[in-house]
Amino acid sequence: MMRLLLVSSSIQHGSGYLEHCADAMTSFFDGCTRIAFVPYALSDHDGYTAKVRARFEELGMSVVSVHEGDPIGTATAADGVFIGGGNTFRLLKAIYDTGLYDALRSRVADGMPYMGTSAGSNVATATICTTNDMPIVNPPSFTALEFVPFQINPHFIDADPTSTHMGETREVRIAEFHEESRRPVVGLREGSWLLREGDELELQGATGAVLFRRGKPSQELAPGADLSDLLVTE
Amino acid sequence: MMRLLLVSSSIQHGSGYLEHCADAMTSFFDGCTRIAFVPYALSDHDGYTAKVRARFEELGMSVVSVHEGDPIGTATAADGVFIGGGNTFRLLKAIYDTGLYDALRSRVADGMPYMGTSAGSNVATATICTTNDMPIVNPPSFTALEFVPFQINPHFIDADPTSTHMGETREVRIAEFHEESRRPVVGLREGSWLLREGDELELQGATGAVLFRRGKPSQELAPGADLSDLLVTE
Repeated sequence: MMRLLLVSSSIQHGSGYLEHCADAMTSFFDGCTRIAFVPYALSDHDGYTAKVRARFEELGMSVVSVHEGDPIGTATAADGVFIGGGNTFRLLKAIYDTGLYDALRSRVADGMPYMGTSAGSNVATATICTTNDMPIVNPPSFTALEFVPFQINPHFIDADPTSTHMGETREVRIAEFHEESRRPVVGLREGSWLLREGDELELQGATGAVLFRRGKPSQELAPGADLSDLLVTE
Repeated sequence: MMRLLLVSSSIQHGSGYLEHCADAMTSFFDGCTRIAFVPYALSDHDGYTAKVRARFEELGMSVVSVHEGDPIGTATAADGVFIGGGNTFRLLKAIYDTGLYDALRSRVADGMPYMGTSAGSNVATATICTTNDMPIVNPPSFTALEFVPFQINPHFIDADPTSTHMGETREVRIAEFHEESRRPVVGLREGSWLLREGDELELQGATGAVLFRRGKPSQELAPGADLSDLLVTE
């Protein structure tokens, strides 16, 4: 049974690192003691690992980073995996370059719980085509781990009607995506996350989300919304 | 002699389409009557062309869009070229797919004046690695037209110290780029543009820019700044 915890952002304004989703994490990783961490979205792997390790230890789990030894062996031997945020392009390129792509696909299909935040949530979806990040490196493909058949836009933010900036709003960017693709996009506000337990998918957290489908009006989603239909490919 | 007019955004808040840079455009395209337009950054090529044609006609120039016939022939036969904004990934993919890449490289090297706004400025630089756009399609390469050896970040916006959003600021994104590349980045605020006349490069417009170099503090650039040194590859 596939198990996913896909969080919009590791920090919600006003709280600490992985604090707002701590209860969901401890419940999700119940019974796991050894978590494999994938630090590749940031350049400072050691520093990132130290931060993540400290937080997971507070929650009763030990962390081994895939950069500290053989990445595939580390990921394969762990009880669960956590991929943190940073730059999505850099992260996906490293997932391909290290061979973690197939290893993660295999283990998560077998039921290893997978948690991602921000870029780590982007790479769990069909493609990275709805990331907000700058394309600082070019991965071999935009195809991501495909644990779900839809897209996530993390850090989703509603348009500011008072803004004088002429750059595209998030809605306009997602509309441009839908000029090129039929895949639904879940705009996950900071403070929200998706929990997948097998065939069930639920929106959790405090801030809700917006569902964008090609050719349809966007739809506000309240915390607790059942999104299991998004797991069924049309 | 290479001639470039690279504008941050086609609209500055409070003015109309290509209004804030109109004097620079008429001076830059002096003697040109027939401008080739590249509409591929948006999906509605006809609508985009109509808008651009109306504006250029007000300024005394006729427009033929490369999508209205043979793209390479149209671009080759024109007196000048204008590439408008939209999605940078879609634009660069189309430039490759149509064969315009080599045609534009050749004509602009021969002195055909090139004007870009936003995505059209991104694709004139070394790579599209500092675009703000969503990667809705995957071009064959991130290498752009390389008319200048540095990067532009258009629609550059200074960080808002009152923001509660946890997504990366523009400075953080550019710092991530500099973890992967040594190329300088000019953060062009809306209302600013770069004018290249051969070996000379000047910052023009009203709002200034910020120069980011790897390992150095960022540097505020005032309108009128001489940036010719950026044309010299180190």
